[in-house]
This record gives sequence, C-alpha cells and structure tokens, in this order.
Amino acid sequence: MKNMTGEGRGGGAEPESCFSYFFEPRSVAVIGALREGWFGGYVIIKNLRVFGFPGEVYPVNPRYDKVLGLDVYASVKDIPAMVDLVIIMTPAAVVPSVLEECGACGVRAAIVVSDGFAERSEEGARLQKELVSVGRREGIRILGPNTVGVTNTANGLVTTPYEFGYSSIRRGFVALAGQTGIIAPQAVPYEDLQYGISKICDFGNKCDVDEADLLEYLAEDAETKVIAMYLEAIRDGRRFLATAKRVVEKKPVIVLKSGRSEAGAKAAASHTGTLAGDDKIYDAAFRQAGVLRIQNFRELFEIPKIFGQPRPKGNRIAMVTMTGGAGVMSTDIAYECGLELARFSEETSNRLGEIFPSLAKNPSDVGPALFADDIIQIYKKAIEAALEDEGVDCVSVVLWTGEAAPPPLYVELFKELKERASKPVAIWAYSAHLVLAQELSRELEKLGFPVFSDFETAVRALGMLYKLSKRVND
Amino acid sequence: MKNMTGEGRGGGAEPESCFSYFFEPRSVAVIGALREGWFGGYVIIKNLRVFGFPGEVYPVNPRYDKVLGLDVYASVKDIPAMVDLVIIMTPAAVVPSVLEECGACGVRAAIVVSDGFAERSEEGARLQKELVSVGRREGIRILGPNTVGVTNTANGLVTTPYEFGYSSIRRGFVALAGQTGIIAPQAVPYEDLQYGISKICDFGNKCDVDEADLLEYLAEDAETKVIAMYLEAIRDGRRFLATAKRVVEKKPVIVLKSGRSEAGAKAAASHTGTLAGDDKIYDAAFRQAGVLRIQNFRELFEIPKIFGQPRPKGNRIAMVTMTGGAGVMSTDIAYECGLELARFSEETSNRLGEIFPSLAKNPSDVGPALFADDIIQIYKKAIEAALEDEGVDCVSVVLWTGEAAPPPLYVELFKELKERASKPVAIWAYSAHLVLAQELSRELEKLGFPVFSDFETAVRALGMLYKLSKRVND
Repeated sequence: MKNMTGEGRGGGAEPESCFSYFFEPRSVAVIGALREGWFGGYVIIKNLRVFGFPGEVYPVNPRYDKVLGLDVYASVKDIPAMVDLVIIMTPAAVVPSVLEECGACGVRAAIVVSDGFAERSEEGARLQKELVSVGRREGIRILGPNTVGVTNTANGLVTTPYEFGYSSIRRGFVALAGQTGIIAPQAVPYEDLQYGISKICDFGNKCDVDEADLLEYLAEDAETKVIAMYLEAIRDGRRFLATAKRVVEKKPVIVLKSGRSEAGAKAAASHTGTLAGDDKIYDAAFRQAGVLRIQNFRELFEIPKIFGQPRPKGNRIAMVTMTGGAGVMSTDIAYECGLELARFSEETSNRLGEIFPSLAKNPSDVGPALFADDIIQIYKKAIEAALEDEGVDCVSVVLWTGEAAPPPLYVELFKELKERASKPVAIWAYSAHLVLAQELSRELEKLGFPVFSDFETAVRALGMLYKLSKRVND
Repeated sequence: MKNMTGEGRGGGAEPESCFSYFFEPRSVAVIGALREGWFGGYVIIKNLRVFGFPGEVYPVNPRYDKVLGLDVYASVKDIPAMVDLVIIMTPAAVVPSVLEECGACGVRAAIVVSDGFAERSEEGARLQKELVSVGRREGIRILGPNTVGVTNTANGLVTTPYEFGYSSIRRGFVALAGQTGIIAPQAVPYEDLQYGISKICDFGNKCDVDEADLLEYLAEDAETKVIAMYLEAIRDGRRFLATAKRVVEKKPVIVLKSGRSEAGAKAAASHTGTLAGDDKIYDAAFRQAGVLRIQNFRELFEIPKIFGQPRPKGNRIAMVTMTGGAGVMSTDIAYECGLELARFSEETSNRLGEIFPSLAKNPSDVGPALFADDIIQIYKKAIEAALEDEGVDCVSVVLWTGEAAPPPLYVELFKELKERASKPVAIWAYSAHLVLAQELSRELEKLGFPVFSDFETAVRALGMLYKLSKRVND
C-alpha cells in the first residue's frame, strides 16, 4: 500500500490495513463546525470524551479559542503534534483544500462527514473526484464523504456527530458496516439492547476506502468474530470477491445488499452516489465467495449475534417453548433453513414425561406443564435435557416472562445453564409487558445468550450457524 | 343452525352466528378451579371485573362459598338464571359430564379451557369426541378445548385465565384469531402498544366451532374492519373457502398458515390435535378465496393495522425518510410488492427543493436537510407535499425521535396531518432509545396512524392495502 508509509503508527512498522488509522488513531483532529448543539464537531469531541477515547483530540476552527476545555487550532497546520486521523465537517466546497493542508502535516486518514458530494449533484460529483485525487496525492485514505464515521468499542472512538444520549456500548464481537448512518449509535439503541459491538463503520459515499479494505482489517481484528454489512454497491467486485473468500475462512461475513430492483438501484445512486449493478451477479458472487446473504434490515443486526455461540455438530434442533403455536411455526422455519427436529432419546423423553407429557416431545411445550411445578424449574429441566441429549445439536428457547416468572429468576437460571451450554442456544422472550420482555432480553444478552426479536429469527439464526459450521466442517 | 334455538338471546330473535354467545353473552358461568393465584377461574372472574364486563358472572365450584364477593354455586344447575356462556376449566375427564349438566340448564355456548384432550393422548382424543357428541346432543356450541377463549373490547369480555397485569385494551378494528393462546392478552403487550382490537379468539383444539363460524360472525361485526387468523389446519376446507369468498367482499381476511413442512404439520397435530394437510392446496385455496396469505407471526399483528387507512387510488408510493439507507431498502420492497415510486410533480419538487435538495426527489430524505430548518417543520413540509401531490397514492414515513425531536412534537404534527390525510400512511419510528421509539409509536397509534416494527413491514403493508384495493376497484 504505497500511501501508507512507515512514518505512521507504532514506531515505523507498516500497518496491515489503512483501517488501523480509522479505528486506532493515537490522535484525532476535528475540523469544522464547533457550535454547541446536538450536531457537529462539538458533539464529536463530546462523544470522544464521554466514551473515554484516550488519544489526543485537537479541535480545528479559526473562529474558536476553546471548546470543551480544549485549545482550538486555526488550522490543522498549527497542531504541534502528529495527527493520525482527521474528521472533516466543513462545507463541501472547501473539503479538498482542507485535505490538502492535512497532507502537508502527515495525516494518514480522513473521515469526511460533510455531505453535498456525488449524492447531491454533478458539481458534488466533481468535488468528490477532486477530493479523491487530493487524497491519492497526499497519501491520505478517505472514509466517506457523507458519513458519520466509525465506532470502536475497544478504545472509545465514536466519531458520530450527533448527540445520542447514552455513554457506553457493550464490547462485543459483532462488526457492523454499511453505506448508511442507521447502523451508528445515534440510530440504534445499542445500550438499551446490550448489543455487543466491536466496530461500526459507515462507508458513506465510499469514494476511497471500501468494503474490501474493511474486510481485510476486520479479518485480523481480534475483537471481531463476525462481520455484517449493508451494501448498496460494491466498488471493486473482483477484489471484494477475492478478499471475502479469504476472510470467510476466518470469520463469517453476512451481507444485506439493496438495490435489488432497478428503482432501488436508482435510489441508491442518489443516496450515496454509487451504482448498484445487476443483483443476480451479486447473488452468484456472494455464493461463490461464501458470503451469507440476508434479506432484511432486522437480520443485519440479529443474525450476527448467533456467531458467539458454539458451533453445532449437526442440524438437529430441539425447541423449548411456552406456546405450542410458536413450536409449530418454528418447526416450519427450521425445515426451511436446513434444520430438522431432534428426536429425544428415550431417557430424555422419560425424564421430561415424568414432569408433564407435553414436555416429552419436541417441540417441548412448557405451557401446559406450568402448573406441574415452578415455571423456572420446568424451563430448567427442559432446557438441560435438550442440552444433554446427544441427539440434539442446537436449542431454540421461547421464554415467557411476567409477574409469575420475572426476569431475575431467568437470569439466575441462565447463569447456571451457561456453565454447561456447549451447544448453541437462541432465545425469544415475550411478555404482556414490553419492559419485562426487554429487561429479560437485555440481561440474557449480557450473559452472552443471543435473544432475537421473534422466534422465527431465532431459528433462522441457528440455521445460518449450522450452514456455516457445515461448510467449515466439510 | 339447529342447535341455536330462539330461546337464547335478545328476546327470541335467532342470533346470526353461534359466536354471538361467545362474544356477547349476557351472563357467564365460570366452572372449575377458583383458587386465588395467577391462573384459573379466579383470574377469569377478576379479568371480567377489571375489564368491566357488564353481564352477570356466576362462579361454580362445590368447594367454595364466595369468590371475589360473588356467591359460588355448587353446580351450574343451582344458578337461578339463564346462562349464555360457560367457561369450563375442570379436569379433562369430567368436562363431558359438566357440559351435560349445562345442557340441562339451557346453556348455549361453552369455552373449554381445560387441556388434556386430542393434543395429549389417545384417551384425550376419545374424551374430545365424547365432548363433541355431548355438545351436539345438548345444543351447546364448544370453543376449544385447550383454549384461553375470547376477548371482546366492546363489552369487556376477557376470558383469559392468566393474570397479565393490565386492565384495558384499546377498542379498535382488528379481529385476531388463531389456534394458539399467544394472540391473547397475557402474551401480547396490547396496552403498551396501544394496539386497537375488536375481538380475539383462541380456537384451541377446534373440536366444534371453527374458523368458518368465526368468519361468519366477524363479517357482520360492526367493530371489525379486518380479520387476521393463525391456522394450523382448516376443519372444513370447502366451507371455509365458500365463507371466506363471501367475507372478503366485506372486509379483508389475512391468514398465517403453519404446518407448511411435514414436520410442522406433525408438530401441529401434537399441539392442537388437528391435521394440517398439504400446503400447496391451502395456498391455492387462499388465492381462490381472495384471502391474503402472510408468512410470519410479526405480520399477523402488523399487516392488519394498515386496513384502518384510506384505500389508495393507485400504486404510487412516496417515501419520506430520515435515512437514505431505509429509502433504498424500502424501494426494493415496494417494487417487490407491486408498488412503484411516485414521481413528484414539478411543483412538489420545487417546493421541497427550496427547503433542501435531498427532499425534492422520492425517497425524500429529511436526514441531510436537518440543519436547514426545524426537524419537525421539515417533516411537516415533506409529508404534506407527498399527501397533496396528485401523483402520489400512498406514503411511507420513517421518523427519527430523540432529544432534538421528541415524541410530543411529532404527535402535534400528526394531529394536524390527520385532518388532511386522505391517503394511506404507514410509519416506522426509530431512536437511539427504545422508550422514545415506543412512546412515539404508541402515541401515533392512538391517533390512528399505523406504526410498524420496521420500514420493510410498513411498505409491505401499503403493498397489501394496494393489492386489496385493486381487487375491490377492478
């Protein structure tokens, strides 16, 4: 990578990916709007503080002296130290010249938040081209323009320019990326969901660094176990394919690709200025590369969660449910995604049948058994039996919570189960009260159990996990 | 209907459907378990009180004197008045003899909550047969067994035997029915969602009254505008088809049919003891009858909500979004379900373009325009323009809420919009905070705007509405 010279990071060692500068800068300059409010550079600086980013932060704006207790520099050239990453949110027209100045100071990476480029107009497209050529010339890699940037939960780097009112994101193993800001913290209640994140990246218009660059970085990122991306277009199909093929050997790559319809492709062009291309070609390419393609936005967030679970040895699913209806519907989904209903061993059947007949078959229905014993105890026995039965490879669990079975009791149960859960488990929790279902979901997520927003997605996620494991095991 | 003699209701007039007794009884006897707790007849009586059921309620159990201030009768025969509906939750083995006694007292309808019938064992199946023949002989229609019964928001009749901790369900136009209790109030946060319900019916094992009976009743029910059903099997295909054909002329019928896979069908058999049959035949029959088939449980609740909206004149959708990504993905969905992107008139384009260029095209993107004006004002202008443009038939709206645009301001806006909204509107609301998105969704539902759990479902619902309108208009 000729534009990544050794003078960058870590005392001369060449970084493996340009994304090191985007995710692990030692210092950040925020250039442009600094007015106090809920949007802008002011908020970026605040977010970096709140999330505990340990590196230096340099505000740049000729019209300010101090912002949030920090000295403000009139130009990036005035900063008395090396800057790894700049975040630019000046008006579009001046971004190229700002970037030029950055080049003169040895900056290696720029997140261009400003919009008004290829997504807006011909003039914007021209400006974007100019931006790219300045970047090339100055050896600066560019993320964006028209992006809210990145999040790295390992170092508190949150470049989102919106005030979003929470101050921590759980460190986790899911990396989310997309040509959209709706995966960023101002749009997703990561804290309320206790959703575990490693990295987030909004590509914006993707004028320079792209999905292939990010894949290369995330493949080596020890925090990331699974990569999920929303893409409107792929910049360099051949390179993406080659990169993805290598990366899926290390960790799963999940893609939601829009622009399937012609009109969708056109909408994509006016959203991020990129060309979507023929969907069939993408589909074939994803299959060839071993990329898991998903079809809706909800799955982009939910399917990755299953990849924190142990890999199943086979496709035999046991279902523990509180409602027979969910059991029947889940069975349909299971078969549609390559799973089959496990047959309990005689020992399991007998053990469960002694508690209540409805438990002894698969799906194992806790509902009718409710009055035979304490709810939590019945769940415990049913889930344990499924985990221990050698004929079972994975388990879906439907939990009902309410006054008679409040979230803390389930939390105790799942703490115990965690010790012995060597099979993947996928959960759906429901209740007559939103807050109770949400509390239970959140607490189980904290324990490392993936909770899905419906039972269908829970089963589908297990199907995806099986599909992947099969490929890896074969 | 020979078992519905004139002596029943309303001074001798023959009721149009046996379901009149299930939904509009003047008096109810609750027979069986009355122990204080969170499940059982005790709770049914409590729920009838809490929801304000105005009819007489008679507890029946030989081992009690008083329950919740009511005299308890040793047998249904001791009740000194006519009983329209009995709710039975004795052990399965004695249900037939209890029903026999009811017959002797002129009871016309029985909800059998007890389980342990065809869903459990051969002996249970035999008992169920016996139950049916007692019902036939005595002229009593049976709902269930293995059911949580019905809800009627018009008269506070809630027969759910579980304590669920809320005390009102918004009166609305959606009738939900299914062979499952997870549509009943103990399983769904109807109050938190401000979901508007007319009737709910859990068919249970469906030994007697069935989906066709219910369709006949709901077709005439003035409170119900749309009927959504989860079915594991259909008892009498020919009758269902004929009935549905008539009913869809009056109001839409939406069906989620499980047992699509062989294993799913088998699971259905052990859930409600019914036989699912070949899915392709169902599919063809639904199409022939004009029934809208849906594919997942979430849609069972969400799609019906759109039918409170005005019918669109055509298939041209305008999208107002806060995020370009949702616009692109929504466009794909729109085309997949028969909608197409509206072209704004020059006047609309100019009007919106003056505010900000990203608003002038469809999808109209509020996101980049945020800083041109107050968020709510931008939304107002964009939505109004879409509603007023003659080239637009329906509108999907993606709302972001947060500190800078809190729910109450949107509520004000949509109150205004309601006056002039003669086109269908479907909404998705998102936020960095679950409670804010939920508050906004709930408040807009109260105003009569349908809010969906994702933007895809919002667009798909408009597609369904268009599909139906087209059939009606053609």
